[in-house]
Amino acid sequence: MSRTSSPHPAAGPIRPGPGAQAVLRPATASIVTAGFWHDRRTVNAEVSIPQGPQMLESEGNLRNFRLAAGAESGTFRGDYPFQDTDVYKWLEAASWQLGQDAAAGRHTAALAAEVDRIIALVAAAQEEDGYLNTWFQSGKGEGRWRDLRWGHELYSAGHLIQAAVAHHRSTGRTELLDVAVKFADHIGTVFGPEDSGRPIDGFDAHPEVETALVELYRETGEARYLDLAGYFVDRHGHGLHGYETYCQDRVPVREAQNAEGHAVRQLYLLAAVADLATETGERALAEAGARIWHAMAATKTHLTGGVGAHHDEEDFGDPYELPSERAYCETCAAIASIQFSWRMALLTGQARYSDLVERTLFNGFLAGVSLDGESWLYVNPLAVRDGHVDGGGDQSSRRTRWFRCACCPPNVMRLLAGLEHYLASTDGSGIQLHQYATGRFQGTAHDSPVVVSVDTEYPWKGRVAVTVEETPDVPWTLSLRLPQWCTEYSLVLADGTAVADVASGDGWLRVGREWAVGDRIVLTLDLPARLVRADPRVDAVRGCVAIERGPLVYCLEQVDHPGGGLDDVVLDTSVPLVSKDRPDLLGGVVTVVGAGYRRGIPDLGWWPYQPQDAPASPATGSPLELTAVPYYAWANRATGSMRVWLPIG
Amino acid sequence: MSRTSSPHPAAGPIRPGPGAQAVLRPATASIVTAGFWHDRRTVNAEVSIPQGPQMLESEGNLRNFRLAAGAESGTFRGDYPFQDTDVYKWLEAASWQLGQDAAAGRHTAALAAEVDRIIALVAAAQEEDGYLNTWFQSGKGEGRWRDLRWGHELYSAGHLIQAAVAHHRSTGRTELLDVAVKFADHIGTVFGPEDSGRPIDGFDAHPEVETALVELYRETGEARYLDLAGYFVDRHGHGLHGYETYCQDRVPVREAQNAEGHAVRQLYLLAAVADLATETGERALAEAGARIWHAMAATKTHLTGGVGAHHDEEDFGDPYELPSERAYCETCAAIASIQFSWRMALLTGQARYSDLVERTLFNGFLAGVSLDGESWLYVNPLAVRDGHVDGGGDQSSRRTRWFRCACCPPNVMRLLAGLEHYLASTDGSGIQLHQYATGRFQGTAHDSPVVVSVDTEYPWKGRVAVTVEETPDVPWTLSLRLPQWCTEYSLVLADGTAVADVASGDGWLRVGREWAVGDRIVLTLDLPARLVRADPRVDAVRGCVAIERGPLVYCLEQVDHPGGGLDDVVLDTSVPLVSKDRPDLLGGVVTVVGAGYRRGIPDLGWWPYQPQDAPASPATGSPLELTAVPYYAWANRATGSMRVWLPIG
Repeated sequence: MSRTSSPHPAAGPIRPGPGAQAVLRPATASIVTAGFWHDRRTVNAEVSIPQGPQMLESEGNLRNFRLAAGAESGTFRGDYPFQDTDVYKWLEAASWQLGQDAAAGRHTAALAAEVDRIIALVAAAQEEDGYLNTWFQSGKGEGRWRDLRWGHELYSAGHLIQAAVAHHRSTGRTELLDVAVKFADHIGTVFGPEDSGRPIDGFDAHPEVETALVELYRETGEARYLDLAGYFVDRHGHGLHGYETYCQDRVPVREAQNAEGHAVRQLYLLAAVADLATETGERALAEAGARIWHAMAATKTHLTGGVGAHHDEEDFGDPYELPSERAYCETCAAIASIQFSWRMALLTGQARYSDLVERTLFNGFLAGVSLDGESWLYVNPLAVRDGHVDGGGDQSSRRTRWFRCACCPPNVMRLLAGLEHYLASTDGSGIQLHQYATGRFQGTAHDSPVVVSVDTEYPWKGRVAVTVEETPDVPWTLSLRLPQWCTEYSLVLADGTAVADVASGDGWLRVGREWAVGDRIVLTLDLPARLVRADPRVDAVRGCVAIERGPLVYCLEQVDHPGGGLDDVVLDTSVPLVSKDRPDLLGGVVTVVGAGYRRGIPDLGWWPYQPQDAPASPATGSPLELTAVPYYAWANRATGSMRVWLPIG
Repeated sequence: MSRTSSPHPAAGPIRPGPGAQAVLRPATASIVTAGFWHDRRTVNAEVSIPQGPQMLESEGNLRNFRLAAGAESGTFRGDYPFQDTDVYKWLEAASWQLGQDAAAGRHTAALAAEVDRIIALVAAAQEEDGYLNTWFQSGKGEGRWRDLRWGHELYSAGHLIQAAVAHHRSTGRTELLDVAVKFADHIGTVFGPEDSGRPIDGFDAHPEVETALVELYRETGEARYLDLAGYFVDRHGHGLHGYETYCQDRVPVREAQNAEGHAVRQLYLLAAVADLATETGERALAEAGARIWHAMAATKTHLTGGVGAHHDEEDFGDPYELPSERAYCETCAAIASIQFSWRMALLTGQARYSDLVERTLFNGFLAGVSLDGESWLYVNPLAVRDGHVDGGGDQSSRRTRWFRCACCPPNVMRLLAGLEHYLASTDGSGIQLHQYATGRFQGTAHDSPVVVSVDTEYPWKGRVAVTVEETPDVPWTLSLRLPQWCTEYSLVLADGTAVADVASGDGWLRVGREWAVGDRIVLTLDLPARLVRADPRVDAVRGCVAIERGPLVYCLEQVDHPGGGLDDVVLDTSVPLVSKDRPDLLGGVVTVVGAGYRRGIPDLGWWPYQPQDAPASPATGSPLELTAVPYYAWANRATGSMRVWLPIG
């Protein structure tokens, strides 16, 4: 096989094929040049990604490949059969980074060399027939394809395929794609329906290969990968695996009513559902994706966009079961949610999906990496209690340099490295800006390129200036997402003229006109600090409110409130909240300051329950100025309590 | 060794030795003859215990003993190295049952024969040197004493010892005691401090042998067992096991400030702390027990007495982290809490410990067994949500015939079978009635026996009549626990004279006088249905109240509220609650009927959070009569939602 194409004209993680039924397609040649996400991505590029290979070496992941290749002797290192995926996700991150660097005209020889070196390790470990999984190749487990419930072989193949697609799209090179294709073709000889003559009629209990195969189809044009992805998705939900909910095997996706089971598994599967609906146009699949997404968002999503309420089995939990202190909200689940939502946004063109992407990006996802890019959170609770006993380990509420199960860090790296591709889209008659970041985005209108540049200090400031950089001489539509949280905004031309009649109520502000190069339009979103409350069925936060500002969820940290913990703090909602620019704090944030008090809680003795008509605790204890910081920035200073939801009485 | 003593004059599970520093000692010759607990114990005796051996056979536990004895060939059955304990706990239950039957003049030959048969199986499996654990004897695991973190060998030995003591105390026979002594002596040659010359300086990460060894000391008078128990307790808390919180190894017990880690492990260890303080008089240990108990009760106990908030690691959780829907509250943890509290009650004489025993018995514990005695709950949540996805398995919220990890059913059996021994005590100058049940209880005063009989329909009715059956001619004190929940009561003599000046504020009503046979005193506890609320730090139930009546916690079940679920139900606290006798329902209960409504919850679309100042949902939806049933009786009818804590707005 020979593939020597140049870098993909539309590099990026999700690229619907030519016949796809997507309403939108990702914008092409996107680039982010300054501002909030640029800063986060710079840390990712300069700290997190470069540190990856040394972590993968010290934890044994790279050595496991040398072992499988026969280049080193010894035993497998690590506890999991899916440890190759840490390498693959890092390769995907590094590949998007190479693409980003190339688009910005930077040449990063050191990173390119590391990528080449690690791809060579991966390629050397591949078996003659295409099989590749260093755990099983090292003699761990029961042997190939024997343990579809826990073996993660197809899951690992999926991450290999995604890395290979990223590498090919970003660099035009085929070394890793050849490995992935060879493995995918091998899988195609092993798995198939009962009547196919292939030896195994089954699927991996951890979805991932499905969405990866769709992307491989998009990259190669080979329909057999799409068919195989469809087969795997269809195979779920018929009770093949004993552990049905966890394994995404309780109900066929076309019949499912809500997200359930292991959150990352469910969401990677749903990403594939959206992909398949996009490529095949199957309405039942599209409806299932929309139905499950709606139910998940409405009943199983934390305020931060975090999903997966349970520590136990990393499970979604029941509707409205959204605890703060034990919110699991795995960083990988936030990433998976973004993967699913963005695909639904492209499939349907509906703004709500990007509303959830925004909320998840700025909160539940971004909290997963420290401000310095060197340590991580696996779980992202919405509260840490006074007196919390931290058992350490992967699920610690203190940031950790790496994890025993290190799925999250390279997953964060790959999303940040490819983030520009989730921000804008084109529908062939203009550009849609889903997320606001300073940069340049290209779409098409009437088969001609349309290019806009965006200038903004979002999320700190609400002004988003959009300038037309390239346009054909025919009218086209610039669409700006009006965030779901926003109640006041203005949209004016550079000359100050307000743009009228753009709000259709569907979340898009659409400005259709004949544009000229240099035309500028300014969207200003009002960003008051605000209070939100939850559906009354969310027992966990009854009687509480949370502070938000723009797309950011805020929290209190103990370090800002000396003299006690946070469990007895009450917010006084009668005192207006004040936003404060704090360039000195947490890399530069806007804090929200409010008034509150510590309760005077009477000592009830040994029993914390009392008659309902017993005198209430005093209406005011000691007054306290409350300083809320963006949730994404928590756990970057002294260890202590933290709260998103604040009692109001 | 030869022990051919007759049945212990003070049979029962916890019998402080002659030199013990306990303020109280269990009453002797206790017997329960009618009423609530008699009914539950009759089901236990006639259904649960007789079904035990067939479950232990069908699950492989008995076969594993035959395997270890060489009487059968094949492989170990089951997943856990502690499966012998299911057999031991059943033997303990059956032994208390035999004791209870003997005290009541019943002869139960069939049960006695089963006990003999199973003891013979156990004895045949014991190694020459005394070692006994069928998992390791069958070649599972790494070998004897190699895995103190997960191997459960000493934990299993502890349950063997407790069963042996029960069998000896109840029947006077030594077949099982001989096995236990032989194993205990073997353990004494293996474990000891570094300078002892014994090969292992360590402890089992699942406490249990400690409290068992104290009881073996009490039964045999051999101080070496007490010393070994003390050594094991002291060895905890120094970071020997890597998994410190879970393994009760993070902090030495004398320094611990609150209960933490795996709830059953923590509480069995604390039972041993109370035992050791009792036998040695060590003040630091007694203070640690009291301190940890207080913190546990005040910050980590659910309204039902259930403890262990987390599914993950069966952990206590943080202070005030007391979720309803995911309350783990393992049945075994409720039992372990009762074990700890009762020992503290005896050690200190303080009523609060028996207050918590009462609450736990009637609610968190009793919910663990179905009304028919044939199925079980492993976990005891305080809510099951509408739309709950039940993953089945041991942690199902549907009652199950037996569990893969079947620790709870025989644990319930043994507590119910020996329950009469937890109800009353003597301090050498009278009798203390801790719990109210119809029966006969014996104590001593001035070295003479004092006997009272109790007649009551508690907990349905508040009248408790106590009649003196036997008394010396000198004054002594009858003490009646005034339950912590009780605000109104009367105490009158048979002739109607009120007894004055008995309330000391410490939870005991003490009536000291010269008694005559036939004297009768009647305590009447007011039993209005009442509402309780939680400490405001319990986020999970903010804005909610719960219904209680007497010692019973109540809940709503969906089956009594057709037309919808329970997540949207609101209690109207302005309408008085009404208690209703329902002999037809759930084996005969008093229900509590209140008024409420279903909220009209507006459809918020895909996002369940909204601005705090958005219009509230309507103040009243459709009115609904709410019927609350005792929590212990839930999950005995149709599957559905359940709630203890009810929103009030």
